[in-house]
Amino acid sequence: MGEGGIELLKAEEDKHGGVVVNVEVEDPIEPLNFSSWLQASISNWSQQGKKGVWIKLPIKHSNLVDTAVKAGFRYHHAEPDHLMLVYWIPHSPDTIPQNASHRVGIGAFVINNNREMLVVQETGGRFKGTGIWKMPTGTVNEIETEFVEILAFRQSHKSFFQKSDMFFVSMLRPLSFDIHSQASEIVASKWMPIEEYAAQSFVQEHDLFRFIAEICLSKLDGKYTGFSNLLTTTSSGKNTYLYFNGHDASNLVDSKNQQA
Amino acid sequence: MGEGGIELLKAEEDKHGGVVVNVEVEDPIEPLNFSSWLQASISNWSQQGKKGVWIKLPIKHSNLVDTAVKAGFRYHHAEPDHLMLVYWIPHSPDTIPQNASHRVGIGAFVINNNREMLVVQETGGRFKGTGIWKMPTGTVNEIETEFVEILAFRQSHKSFFQKSDMFFVSMLRPLSFDIHSQASEIVASKWMPIEEYAAQSFVQEHDLFRFIAEICLSKLDGKYTGFSNLLTTTSSGKNTYLYFNGHDASNLVDSKNQQA
Repeated sequence: MGEGGIELLKAEEDKHGGVVVNVEVEDPIEPLNFSSWLQASISNWSQQGKKGVWIKLPIKHSNLVDTAVKAGFRYHHAEPDHLMLVYWIPHSPDTIPQNASHRVGIGAFVINNNREMLVVQETGGRFKGTGIWKMPTGTVNEIETEFVEILAFRQSHKSFFQKSDMFFVSMLRPLSFDIHSQASEIVASKWMPIEEYAAQSFVQEHDLFRFIAEICLSKLDGKYTGFSNLLTTTSSGKNTYLYFNGHDASNLVDSKNQQA
Repeated sequence: MGEGGIELLKAEEDKHGGVVVNVEVEDPIEPLNFSSWLQASISNWSQQGKKGVWIKLPIKHSNLVDTAVKAGFRYHHAEPDHLMLVYWIPHSPDTIPQNASHRVGIGAFVINNNREMLVVQETGGRFKGTGIWKMPTGTVNEIETEFVEILAFRQSHKSFFQKSDMFFVSMLRPLSFDIHSQASEIVASKWMPIEEYAAQSFVQEHDLFRFIAEICLSKLDGKYTGFSNLLTTTSSGKNTYLYFNGHDASNLVDSKNQQA
């Protein structure tokens, strides 16, 4: 972007016939300049037959949001440090992909060799001060583990503004038995016999917790198979993990290992 | 919000010690007025010991985004018609929940009584014009079905800007065998013998598609169990579906049905 006048915004082409403008300029930009660059650029992209125009606008250029909206852009998504705006040039219906719709959390079923389960008490949240021991949830960076299986998952619709929640109960194999807990979020943590965990009244009295405890117990007793994963690629060549019943489709893992 | 001066913004309390301002005013708001209301309101909420302040700002008030950012707000998330901004008042570390991180799609494995699978060709996307018949993906509003199981799912990290993709292959039981396809997205649709679907070279040559086809075939032959679901509630009483290996944990469904 230059000294003003009818300059064009620098854009990169995306794979879907559109362009992405990443406003990386450090200095403040005058809305009037931005407006004229934007109009000239849209006219140019339109002549080139471009479809979607994306503007990634860092929050420090928040003075340009209104300008982009007045030029016909709408919001697509935002992260703490930037806003993504989008404009669909053609007259045909837009094929702009949807924004993320789900928050994803995990619960970690981590068990040692003595049928003891890693449990925690948290500094905040619903169970604060109740004395209830629960499965660690959220991030489990603080203990070294290896993924075993996803045992179960749950989905709740529109649990947070318009977004949905998914929560995966994952069995993880500890690579170390020393617990280093995150002081800011965890009050206490320990290894607890799994039967003792399952016998807690909050677990017994609540279907969801009781079901999950029963699944964990069944798994430990060799009577339950969860979902294993296998690294493969999508049709566009990106890495992706496929999760499936590892018992019933053990042939998939075998055939993959034979190729490797 | 009043005629100007030191008015306070109307806010509702949330469950986490914070407040939510929903700017529902129809008329344009002057940034200078908004700025003084915001400052007075923050000072007031601060005295009340409030924590997170949320502003839901409709896109028609995009002229106020810059004002909110200058007052210390950051972006949280955005939808086409509004931007959600947030400000953390206390000096303690913020506990503002994360934005949605995943886009979730589904692929529908719909089979009739003749081992024929519902397949489509799409008007756009990667397989446009290739003649490849694929499982319907995205929304499946157009055929009446009943959920049977999730057979498998895959996760790709950061596949779309900073967001991750999850894709669930779901087995659905058709309640009608008439196909009404969505003309804007589907070029053609039909019932195809599942062996014929699986024999297509794009399925055979690509691990992911071949694995999924093998899982569908195994399911049809009674040799594979996916994830069944059970409606239950979270600890805060919200409806949630728990998905689990329906064969190995069939006792969960039984015990639930006995209660009902």
